[in-house]
Amino acid sequence: MRIALAQSNSILCDFNRNQENILNFVQRAKEKNAELVVFPEANLFGYHPFDLLEREVLVEQQLKTLKNLVKLLPKDIFVLIGGFDKNPDKKGRPYFNSAFLCQKNKIIKTFNKELLPTGDVFDEARFIDKGSVANNFFKIKNKTFFLTICEDIWAWEDSKKESIYKENPLKRIKGKKTDFVINMSASPFFEGKLKLREYYVKKTAQHFKAPMMYVNMVGAQDELIYDGQSFVVDAKGVTQFRCRSFEEDLNVFDLETLKDWNSDNSAGRESATEQLRKALVLGIKDFMSKSGLGKVHLGLSGGIDSALVACLAVDALGSNNVRLFALPTEFNHPESFELAKRLAKNLKVEMQTISIQESYKQIKSVLDKEFKVEKFQLMHENLQSRLRGLFLMAYSNLNQSMLLTTGNKSEYATGYATLYGDMCGGLAPIGDLTKKQVNDLSRHYNLEYELIPARIIDRPPSAELRPNQKDQDSLPEYDLLDKSVRNIVEDRKKARTPTDKWLLPQLMRTEFKRWQAPPILKISEHSFGRGRRYPLAHRAKEI
Amino acid sequence: MRIALAQSNSILCDFNRNQENILNFVQRAKEKNAELVVFPEANLFGYHPFDLLEREVLVEQQLKTLKNLVKLLPKDIFVLIGGFDKNPDKKGRPYFNSAFLCQKNKIIKTFNKELLPTGDVFDEARFIDKGSVANNFFKIKNKTFFLTICEDIWAWEDSKKESIYKENPLKRIKGKKTDFVINMSASPFFEGKLKLREYYVKKTAQHFKAPMMYVNMVGAQDELIYDGQSFVVDAKGVTQFRCRSFEEDLNVFDLETLKDWNSDNSAGRESATEQLRKALVLGIKDFMSKSGLGKVHLGLSGGIDSALVACLAVDALGSNNVRLFALPTEFNHPESFELAKRLAKNLKVEMQTISIQESYKQIKSVLDKEFKVEKFQLMHENLQSRLRGLFLMAYSNLNQSMLLTTGNKSEYATGYATLYGDMCGGLAPIGDLTKKQVNDLSRHYNLEYELIPARIIDRPPSAELRPNQKDQDSLPEYDLLDKSVRNIVEDRKKARTPTDKWLLPQLMRTEFKRWQAPPILKISEHSFGRGRRYPLAHRAKEI
Repeated sequence: MRIALAQSNSILCDFNRNQENILNFVQRAKEKNAELVVFPEANLFGYHPFDLLEREVLVEQQLKTLKNLVKLLPKDIFVLIGGFDKNPDKKGRPYFNSAFLCQKNKIIKTFNKELLPTGDVFDEARFIDKGSVANNFFKIKNKTFFLTICEDIWAWEDSKKESIYKENPLKRIKGKKTDFVINMSASPFFEGKLKLREYYVKKTAQHFKAPMMYVNMVGAQDELIYDGQSFVVDAKGVTQFRCRSFEEDLNVFDLETLKDWNSDNSAGRESATEQLRKALVLGIKDFMSKSGLGKVHLGLSGGIDSALVACLAVDALGSNNVRLFALPTEFNHPESFELAKRLAKNLKVEMQTISIQESYKQIKSVLDKEFKVEKFQLMHENLQSRLRGLFLMAYSNLNQSMLLTTGNKSEYATGYATLYGDMCGGLAPIGDLTKKQVNDLSRHYNLEYELIPARIIDRPPSAELRPNQKDQDSLPEYDLLDKSVRNIVEDRKKARTPTDKWLLPQLMRTEFKRWQAPPILKISEHSFGRGRRYPLAHRAKEI
Repeated sequence: MRIALAQSNSILCDFNRNQENILNFVQRAKEKNAELVVFPEANLFGYHPFDLLEREVLVEQQLKTLKNLVKLLPKDIFVLIGGFDKNPDKKGRPYFNSAFLCQKNKIIKTFNKELLPTGDVFDEARFIDKGSVANNFFKIKNKTFFLTICEDIWAWEDSKKESIYKENPLKRIKGKKTDFVINMSASPFFEGKLKLREYYVKKTAQHFKAPMMYVNMVGAQDELIYDGQSFVVDAKGVTQFRCRSFEEDLNVFDLETLKDWNSDNSAGRESATEQLRKALVLGIKDFMSKSGLGKVHLGLSGGIDSALVACLAVDALGSNNVRLFALPTEFNHPESFELAKRLAKNLKVEMQTISIQESYKQIKSVLDKEFKVEKFQLMHENLQSRLRGLFLMAYSNLNQSMLLTTGNKSEYATGYATLYGDMCGGLAPIGDLTKKQVNDLSRHYNLEYELIPARIIDRPPSAELRPNQKDQDSLPEYDLLDKSVRNIVEDRKKARTPTDKWLLPQLMRTEFKRWQAPPILKISEHSFGRGRRYPLAHRAKEI
């Protein structure tokens, strides 16, 4: 039996477009003689819907689309589509996260997800009711399939025998001969996530003593980036092939051999840094196109962070859709400007220079006089940063261009960023990257030739808001700080090192800034953003 | 038997202070011969902890405090304290939301909350595991008590026979004679919430055929305001007495009579508008004190929104801790300034006037030249708003004073607010009030004498960012808009009226602004803020 793995990219609530996309995948699968096509979780609605699910009419629109779509599908092929179904019961939450098995222009069976993730960025229990995997079997041509949806396979104990679920619903299912297990997922990317997925898929395949396919969504949605990288394993859980990362892919294979029919499959061979690049590029691209936006701009300081964001933006949207600004004051070293200019030239992007010096001086003189300020201080530094935000937002107003924010995770963790200044923007593409990751990815952009002037990468980081300022005047060395950010924010461990202990109170004290941060593309297990929900008014002290 | 209802205000993670507070309440209860003292949910830890629970060491500190506290309690009294306990099982989430029954310097029984709220602002399922109410009985002097924690009593069907819970755990408990039911809660305020609580308490009391006490937390935590208003009902669910609203209270009553021993109890007699005032004042006060902040400032425009915020701030913090600014440009009517000055005088608050006209003109000329702008437009309006933000944030930097944001819910719903401009600030006290509520509360402040110059309340609202601007040039009439905000945002209903249909796409399109809004004090069932989780990149259209 021939099966197609349809790794598709959906647009949240663009039902007509998602329908077209499904029909297109099915058509191509049929041309390759597939008898069953499997899509990712919730692919007709798009994922993660968050509170859009409180708008019942959207679920109704989606169900209407499904009804129509089923009639347009070829009759002689089974198709598994993901979406949200209504819960007919007056008790419980209003919807199920469902998979619809379609054949002969009908929905022949509906499956409802049982385990609903509620950690980190996930909020499924808000509007989704718990289904049951108990009867998730179906037959095609005497072959028995068992279907699961995403989290349904994530209750296996980890190496420490721990699990956030008290009970694993798959353990209840025993003794029934299964020929193939399917998992339809929408699993966002972070470094190391693929290994986790392989672990849970292996456990599941071994439990059912059957080969298994893991169909993951691809595409980005706000902060979340779905990497695809769907795969098929044998009954022992050994990976047979894998789909492309960060792009749509269609793979057709025979149940008997588990070999895919794509000849050029180079999936999963990139380095971690290349994966990071692909993730962020997809993150920017999908955020823009799915929001209906086209153009971005940013301030280029001559430092590494804005340089990297400029490269990513050009990578995602093309030089014509990116515009750069140099907004110098007296504190900017002439070299910074020269470096920025060279990078803009390398990227073939127009860079406009507007001195904010006179505006800075004018406001400074008013503030100093009115507030009786005698010496240069933090206020003057923030003033420069906020003036830049103000100029860049004026350009947004004039040109419907979205400002990109250039802060990185190490800065955000310490609050080394000006609220309403350099934190202005509609999206923070590198807000989840430690300084080391910023460096690595910048060097990666220079692999073939010096796209980013090497001096940008090598010189000591500076905000250039006062004479001879260096980041390390205020912050620990970045290699130590990065490790603490990993330890405290990503791994959520205890403070151990002196830098950990320096970071923790900084982190707590500056939470109010991150409360107002723009969406941050998430590439780590725990990023700043909606998945991190810290209160502000408290007295927590770790000692 | 004499029971004390200890309606206390905790500080999140200030364990020493919370311990002192508990000891103080218990001492006072003992003086009134109480044999049992009951505190609100999680009162030793503070509530809502959100992701502070990922810091295990904080739960350990709290458990250590509990161990110490138990030894300090008087021996001859039973005390019910709320907090988080560790889940000893490797499976499931790491903690329970628990109640600890203490007597004779020991914890004699621990109860774990079964129903964990995950809607709107609540995120309990992230770190809390599900307990069971099945064995929540305990005995004191031959009287049988049954204990529940907050949400445990919220699974009764509503008048439409609906419930978000599939199963009501209380229905499993039958036939056991119960003398008294207890509910320890941390239930945040919104208008009409008390009626809901009374409904669920009545259902529970009737189910157990026993009188019942509902002990609610008081105090504010970030966006959430807990109103207290604890109460006791008889076996039929009829309220016998109620504690004060928005302040700590200790009530002692006899199980036999259910009459409280406080003579001056005027609780629950205020108007809805007075409750609103109390809620917002407590919200500001606790946000400041629990964050360790003392002073606030804001821009006073001569309009009603900033006037009301100024009154609330003075109410919460006193005139000495509030500072006002007038930041006029050529577009501000001289009357606005005069009105602002009169209000500041009435409030006995210092108001500083700084013209931003020259700064505005200087930047305008740079922007117009550099961006080749020929006519006055939105950019110039936003520029003024952002310049005000910049001046007010400079004052923050200099004086460790927190800027208050003055936007209301009707504006925020339509996006009629400038990101990084008038949306700047650390807290938005009236961000959940419709324009009507702003008007009502302003008039309420004038009940005894004209605190707010009447003209501020009566004249047509204007942002004064261009000549002769009125809000109604861009927005529907506020009475229609307010109704639509209630319908769409608060009641989450379908769009019905033309204004609803105008609002919905505005709402969706401007979500990016609210993503970056400061914390908004929540006084409605569904406010903007962390309880509303809408995505940005989507194509949802309601037709």
